[in-house]
Amino acid sequence: MIEQRRADGSLRHLITLETLRRDEIEALLQRSQHFARGIGERPPTADTLQGVNIANLFTEPSTRTRVSFELAGRRLGAEVVNLEVQLSSRVKGESMLDTIYTLQALHFDVFVIRDAEPGVLAHVASHVAPRVSVLSAGEAHLSHPTQGLLDALTIRQHKGSLEALSIAIVGDIRHSRVARSAYQAFRILQAREIRIVAPPALMPDAQEFPGCPRFETLEDGLAGVDVVMMLRVQKERFAETAIPDGDEYFARYGLTPARLALARPDAIVMHPQPMNRGIEIDSAVADGPQSVIRAQVSNGVAVRMAVLESVAGGLTR
Amino acid sequence: MIEQRRADGSLRHLITLETLRRDEIEALLQRSQHFARGIGERPPTADTLQGVNIANLFTEPSTRTRVSFELAGRRLGAEVVNLEVQLSSRVKGESMLDTIYTLQALHFDVFVIRDAEPGVLAHVASHVAPRVSVLSAGEAHLSHPTQGLLDALTIRQHKGSLEALSIAIVGDIRHSRVARSAYQAFRILQAREIRIVAPPALMPDAQEFPGCPRFETLEDGLAGVDVVMMLRVQKERFAETAIPDGDEYFARYGLTPARLALARPDAIVMHPQPMNRGIEIDSAVADGPQSVIRAQVSNGVAVRMAVLESVAGGLTR
Amino acid sequence: MIEQRRADGSLRHLITLETLRRDEIEALLQRSQHFARGIGERPPTADTLQGVNIANLFTEPSTRTRVSFELAGRRLGAEVVNLEVQLSSRVKGESMLDTIYTLQALHFDVFVIRDAEPGVLAHVASHVAPRVSVLSAGEAHLSHPTQGLLDALTIRQHKGSLEALSIAIVGDIRHSRVARSAYQAFRILQAREIRIVAPPALMPDAQEFPGCPRFETLEDGLAGVDVVMMLRVQKERFAETAIPDGDEYFARYGLTPARLALARPDAIVMHPQPMNRGIEIDSAVADGPQSVIRAQVSNGVAVRMAVLESVAGGLTR
Repeated sequence: MIEQRRADGSLRHLITLETLRRDEIEALLQRSQHFARGIGERPPTADTLQGVNIANLFTEPSTRTRVSFELAGRRLGAEVVNLEVQLSSRVKGESMLDTIYTLQALHFDVFVIRDAEPGVLAHVASHVAPRVSVLSAGEAHLSHPTQGLLDALTIRQHKGSLEALSIAIVGDIRHSRVARSAYQAFRILQAREIRIVAPPALMPDAQEFPGCPRFETLEDGLAGVDVVMMLRVQKERFAETAIPDGDEYFARYGLTPARLALARPDAIVMHPQPMNRGIEIDSAVADGPQSVIRAQVSNGVAVRMAVLESVAGGLTR
Repeated sequence: MIEQRRADGSLRHLITLETLRRDEIEALLQRSQHFARGIGERPPTADTLQGVNIANLFTEPSTRTRVSFELAGRRLGAEVVNLEVQLSSRVKGESMLDTIYTLQALHFDVFVIRDAEPGVLAHVASHVAPRVSVLSAGEAHLSHPTQGLLDALTIRQHKGSLEALSIAIVGDIRHSRVARSAYQAFRILQAREIRIVAPPALMPDAQEFPGCPRFETLEDGLAGVDVVMMLRVQKERFAETAIPDGDEYFARYGLTPARLALARPDAIVMHPQPMNRGIEIDSAVADGPQSVIRAQVSNGVAVRMAVLESVAGGLTR
Repeated sequence: MIEQRRADGSLRHLITLETLRRDEIEALLQRSQHFARGIGERPPTADTLQGVNIANLFTEPSTRTRVSFELAGRRLGAEVVNLEVQLSSRVKGESMLDTIYTLQALHFDVFVIRDAEPGVLAHVASHVAPRVSVLSAGEAHLSHPTQGLLDALTIRQHKGSLEALSIAIVGDIRHSRVARSAYQAFRILQAREIRIVAPPALMPDAQEFPGCPRFETLEDGLAGVDVVMMLRVQKERFAETAIPDGDEYFARYGLTPARLALARPDAIVMHPQPMNRGIEIDSAVADGPQSVIRAQVSNGVAVRMAVLESVAGGLTR
């Protein structure tokens, strides 16, 4: 496993939350809260990263996460360049590593990478120059650390410490990087209980998510929880399950007001987006008073500002 | 119809020119003129929109209009982010409205939207937070308000008030958002006469363009006019007409020097671009002394600066 | 041939190195060296081009060169806009020249153009307004002048004056704009010897590369040289040669440590990238101590800063 810290203990890369200590995550969340603004408020700007060069390397389409990192960098004064890696270098058969060496030679300081292939992030991080940081913006089904942080931040804003909370993660856990990073964040922050709720075919392997009670029905899984974290389900996954289509998925696993009523009355509802309304979530819930889904998006920029500042803030000194 | 003004009467959205008053359009044109520069001059820059975040959302390809809005925003100090909506969120089946809520949560203040589907703009405008403005960059065949304003500005620069002028709009009026917005602008500015000139199959429905004399030949339509505004014709439209191909279209509706000679000798020639040279317009006219086609492009940036400043200038206070 | 200088002798366009004088190239390289930084150092920034508008027009995909020009412009304070010309205007059948007139009307001052069609660059340069500069970012198989300059800069950094040097350019010379611009730069800088080394089918026509000794084997071509400049070979070219595939190409023309040992012991190895490792170059050479391939990338930004400043620096006065 790649070492994410510098010799002085400061954060250099962020590829997984798994190896972070509680105090490191707490510090990132505290700094994120400093950057967080409600919808309708002015976003904060600063020149902390002036002269820092950030490359956004997305090999899968993702408006939301790409723009979130772009805004986070620009609002701190950095130069951000978007590179459609799969549309340019890769079409000529260039190796990822040569691309990375090239970007380094162009004096990029931070590489924000989304890639569908497991291990690419750590491979890159183990080859970049000491000055360069690598941030994951989503890696295969494995990891999406800034999403895990923004989920934790959103819960803390509404519920305070996670130690007293029961949290249900619901849906296609098996293929979800969002679920894995959320689990890691919540575990390190010592959430009281992290439940996973999924159809049998979409449950993760037995050794994954240690310590998490598993539920195969929403009714059982949601009973009494403080936080309901829904996941996006891909239609292509239905073929792996006994569920024929979106209507049937909704009938069995869709979050409706009636099912949400099984959770604590003050439970909050989260979703990483984009949502399949009418498949994994009812619009009445998605847009209802318990939903904090839009706050998650705002928190995403705040978390990415904190992470960027943390890994690259020292470069301008 | 969506209300485009705030409670204090100031302009918040610009989706259609149809409901604007003459004094509102005059004020926008006067401010546009302040930003207008001839080709070869330095464009003006300012920091009026510093800290304002603009999202360029184009679901149809359009280099010209997208870049024009991008430059307008950047030259006023705003942050502008281009989002290829159809290439990212939409491919995952995300609804436009969720995209909008997300962009709002990312603290974008202005959404510049081009969309092929009628009603999307008003739908978005009726759902955004009070702080957010929605600007049309082209809506289906219905509306392209900043194009209408830049056309009016260009005419005023060359001819002064529109009240004494006869203006011919020529070509595929039926499918043209450019024609509709130009008509609205010219009508509100009380142009003396707005003629529409088109093959029968490309004429708009009878109740549209009220008060406009209709002509089915260029020879009749151009006689004595002050302004000739040509439209782009799509080759795919020929199938709807009795015209087999581009050569025949040019023979019957192409603007040649001989036909232009039927207009007033000081008539100006306009085209929204991109031009089909040799189909709707002869190069001798497009590049000739009466053409103001390139000035239209420059005026596009000036008009968009005025509109952006008008809707978002108050946000920085 | 297009005149690249203004009436006062200053550089206005850079489409080919062929007509530049030695003192002009020396001045550009000296200024490039001012902007050059080692990998791991902070890149220089300035506001020399504040208010200058640069349009990056790439009709072929090229992450490296596009980003290099973008960073060069932004690090000098210019506004840089990327336009995917083939994805927007051209799909509607718009002519290149109308695109150029439009960009001029949008007040772009510098057009950076990559195009696969010979002559497009000169055609554009002969039509733009006096204020506007045209820079080649690669033209067909003909020319890639900033690449030629960065190659010369890289050699000078490691070897000083070119006058004492023997340089071998190796690979698909016939189709290579990199080879042609390098040859022009090296000839003007009076390199002692410029060898071209290629399979017979990939040799240029006899009248091209005058004065260059020609070699058909690497073993002969590399003997005693100071600089080995490898070119990328396209797999599609094998059909034109007697070489069936990449393995056979590597067996005959791949740069291995053993073959490199035929050159001078202090010879440097260059490659314009992206590299086909295992086809034209062995990884042990590409990543070895004699390789200056990554320095070439850094020098690319420095050279483009010098060229942009040279053609557009006067605009802000």
